[in-house]
Amino acid sequence: MNDVKTAAKPDSAYDKLIERVKQRHLLGSTASLLSWDRETMLPAGGAEQRSKQTAQLARLIHEMTVDPRVGELLVECEADRELLADPISAAAVNMRETRRDYDRATKLPAELVEESARVASIATGQWAEARQANDFKRFLPWLEQNLTLARRRAECYGYPDGGELWDALAEGFEQKMTAAGIEKIFAPLRDALVDLVNRIGDAPRRPRDVFDAIDVDQDAKRDLARQVTEAIGFDYHCGRLDTSAHPFSSTIHPTDVRITTRYREGNALEPLSAAMHEAGHGIYGQNLPIEHEYTPMGEAVSLAVHESQSRMWENQVGRSRAFWRWCLPVLRQCYGSAADGLTVDDVFGGTNVVRPSLIRVEADEVTYNLHIMVRFELERALMNGGLGAADLPGAWNEKYRQYLGVEVPDDARGCMQDVHWSHGAIGYFPTYTLGNLYAAQFFRTAEADLPDLQRMIEAGQFASLKTWLVQNIHRHGMRYRSGELCEHVTRRPLTAEPLLAYLEGKLSPLYGL
Amino acid sequence: MNDVKTAAKPDSAYDKLIERVKQRHLLGSTASLLSWDRETMLPAGGAEQRSKQTAQLARLIHEMTVDPRVGELLVECEADRELLADPISAAAVNMRETRRDYDRATKLPAELVEESARVASIATGQWAEARQANDFKRFLPWLEQNLTLARRRAECYGYPDGGELWDALAEGFEQKMTAAGIEKIFAPLRDALVDLVNRIGDAPRRPRDVFDAIDVDQDAKRDLARQVTEAIGFDYHCGRLDTSAHPFSSTIHPTDVRITTRYREGNALEPLSAAMHEAGHGIYGQNLPIEHEYTPMGEAVSLAVHESQSRMWENQVGRSRAFWRWCLPVLRQCYGSAADGLTVDDVFGGTNVVRPSLIRVEADEVTYNLHIMVRFELERALMNGGLGAADLPGAWNEKYRQYLGVEVPDDARGCMQDVHWSHGAIGYFPTYTLGNLYAAQFFRTAEADLPDLQRMIEAGQFASLKTWLVQNIHRHGMRYRSGELCEHVTRRPLTAEPLLAYLEGKLSPLYGL
Repeated sequence: MNDVKTAAKPDSAYDKLIERVKQRHLLGSTASLLSWDRETMLPAGGAEQRSKQTAQLARLIHEMTVDPRVGELLVECEADRELLADPISAAAVNMRETRRDYDRATKLPAELVEESARVASIATGQWAEARQANDFKRFLPWLEQNLTLARRRAECYGYPDGGELWDALAEGFEQKMTAAGIEKIFAPLRDALVDLVNRIGDAPRRPRDVFDAIDVDQDAKRDLARQVTEAIGFDYHCGRLDTSAHPFSSTIHPTDVRITTRYREGNALEPLSAAMHEAGHGIYGQNLPIEHEYTPMGEAVSLAVHESQSRMWENQVGRSRAFWRWCLPVLRQCYGSAADGLTVDDVFGGTNVVRPSLIRVEADEVTYNLHIMVRFELERALMNGGLGAADLPGAWNEKYRQYLGVEVPDDARGCMQDVHWSHGAIGYFPTYTLGNLYAAQFFRTAEADLPDLQRMIEAGQFASLKTWLVQNIHRHGMRYRSGELCEHVTRRPLTAEPLLAYLEGKLSPLYGL
Repeated sequence: MNDVKTAAKPDSAYDKLIERVKQRHLLGSTASLLSWDRETMLPAGGAEQRSKQTAQLARLIHEMTVDPRVGELLVECEADRELLADPISAAAVNMRETRRDYDRATKLPAELVEESARVASIATGQWAEARQANDFKRFLPWLEQNLTLARRRAECYGYPDGGELWDALAEGFEQKMTAAGIEKIFAPLRDALVDLVNRIGDAPRRPRDVFDAIDVDQDAKRDLARQVTEAIGFDYHCGRLDTSAHPFSSTIHPTDVRITTRYREGNALEPLSAAMHEAGHGIYGQNLPIEHEYTPMGEAVSLAVHESQSRMWENQVGRSRAFWRWCLPVLRQCYGSAADGLTVDDVFGGTNVVRPSLIRVEADEVTYNLHIMVRFELERALMNGGLGAADLPGAWNEKYRQYLGVEVPDDARGCMQDVHWSHGAIGYFPTYTLGNLYAAQFFRTAEADLPDLQRMIEAGQFASLKTWLVQNIHRHGMRYRSGELCEHVTRRPLTAEPLLAYLEGKLSPLYGL
């Protein structure tokens, strides 16, 4: 591949196309800043004004995306064989992705886009109130409207033969993801995880929740989160760590990546775990190929691959014994006497407490994936018509009983707990578990490539793993789609086996299974 | 005036015009957020990317401003007598200001706009390095280029008969401001201030710099700044207080106004003074007429009137004995034992130390205006050709000797101290002193209208003054130009007399003059 050569025709159709793509991405980076600011800095009174600013940029960006001139330039470029000769050249990747964006954006009639946004906005407000009041009936008509509109969008997008409506929407979150493909990977994972959770429930011993007993103030928690994220490779010259109600990361540009965590009373682990998670996203964002800034070639592969980066630092690293051998002294230094008497066994155990629970975002590394499977199966059935929206609570509760062995006491802590369906996002949830699967499979390859990895982690030397991730994943931008990247890096298609082996290997000795 | 009636023709030319104006202002509010973020939050590495985001929005906003369709709609609207019947109706004001913006923006050829921006950008970098190295010769060619371009812009803008080039540029910062008009107001002020400074120099007694001896940490300073700004009426539901290298305020929207201060070692007054100053700007921004959001009618009158709001809270209020009667206990509560033994006389005196100095931004309330006059006189001469750029240092140093009685030891602390000329901003400086003059004249009227004002300030009751400002100034938006507003509110044209009387009245007893 020779990116420079293929892109170096001044005033070619390709140059003109890319100039438009760059302008769109640049404006998108400003929209990202508006979103980040809304979650971290915006005074409460400014929310309505912010929604106007955001809507204006969304409109301008949409206009840039569907501009007929983009369609014409694409046709011109696609007639140029040389440009497409190497399918993983920057030019070919940029055209592939710009074509995809253009086609998806132009397939939806403006009326449907607006109606979906309008209903989603009301439905999200109604959902928040219905959840507060634990009143599913109140949310039901809005869920039904969201589903009707989602089906209409799916029909506009279309899907390949043998597919289903769900696929057409999921494609918007993860390219080439289909319900059938997900089910094939999830089925063995589900059975093995249910079995693992059951064995852990009957285990002869279990670690203590040592972090619940640590009482330190927010400054100490922030100090630890900052030190550890810096140590693992998040670059504060090109990034920030702030506070938000729900932790998130925002890659405005590789030189401006912002992450957040949160500090809740009586929870001395969450600020660190969440910060490591978001720093994993952030390190990916900071190491995207800056020479391809503002083009698809300079963007992250997909939500699932992004999630693999966050999960690897949070889990494969942050919940390992090796990590805590290094981190316990750092924690002691930040937490002072509140950490007195803690051993490596204590903190390693405390980060690996597995316990079936009701709430996805608070779930542990094992049961988290079962929460996702419930949602995937139910939203698939909702889209296919196999499940009516009115029957969602019953179906939800049954699956929680079956997979997690827990009784759901109310819909607020049941099928209304997540925001996603309230704004009509169908097909998003599986990307979380795909992220866990990619993380395990990538990490296994990293361990094979870096035989000293565990020893380096023990010594607080994270640079080798980071460099491995940069070289194998980050620097490629969107060169490969997620499945291709996985085969390129691990020499295997994605399977559930590495995640299961990783969990068994860590938890069996800990729980005496 | 009846704003609703004149604006209520759906799909009229006026509605179409205003819709465009609103879109432009809305995008401008996003540009304001980018600027605020750059000064407060942006990671160092993100500076280059930020300049691209900012340049893109500037280009989009410029395109919206000079769109020929705006020109056509303006002509259509201006033919509608009903719209213009009442010159202070929202419609008439919006048309007047939109016409002005359109004419000024279209008078400059795109080439000149770009060349000015390009040279200013390099010149500002060169200025920073030249100042660092105390090397005026290095800055000189860039200053000369800036002046040449400024003259070209001034020629494009033009000016009325009897005016001069400087006026054409100053009009961009303060409508109807002319060098001759400024000189008429400044001349008596200059003589009186030089005399006052001399008398203070020979005064039988002088207050101590008590704040220099107070050693407290940043949290204590922030706490005091926050409490006082909240007390005087800055609304934290629609605002924030942050830290930046140079304090500033940013009205993104009346519901989102952000102010900053700074915390330097060994300076326990500056964080409060700067915060009160910026809160004065902020209170103005928060109380602009929100029903006219995104239109000129909903904007501040001018830089000078804006500065009058900041200066009034910083000086007329914040450096008064009445204020310190209320504020000393608040300061004690924030500063703890570091404030032991301080009396009201001490802190009132400490905020009124007058001492000729070299640096404008650190100058006291009296000498500040002399710094401004030096700059006004010199930039006027530079524009008219009476002074060559190479002769600037000598002329500068001579005026400092003459007006302030100080010897300028080097150009870094002399004619290179300010950023303004490095980016070609000619005509800006006088707005600072105009702000001081408006502040004094407005405050005198407020005192006449609110006979209890000093007693309310002593009691920490600032609501009456704030309401007076909202009713007399803020709620009018751009209804009146600054001169008209002054006559409307104070029933007199602007003169130097109220400022001089205020300074004499406060300082004579303090210094025993």
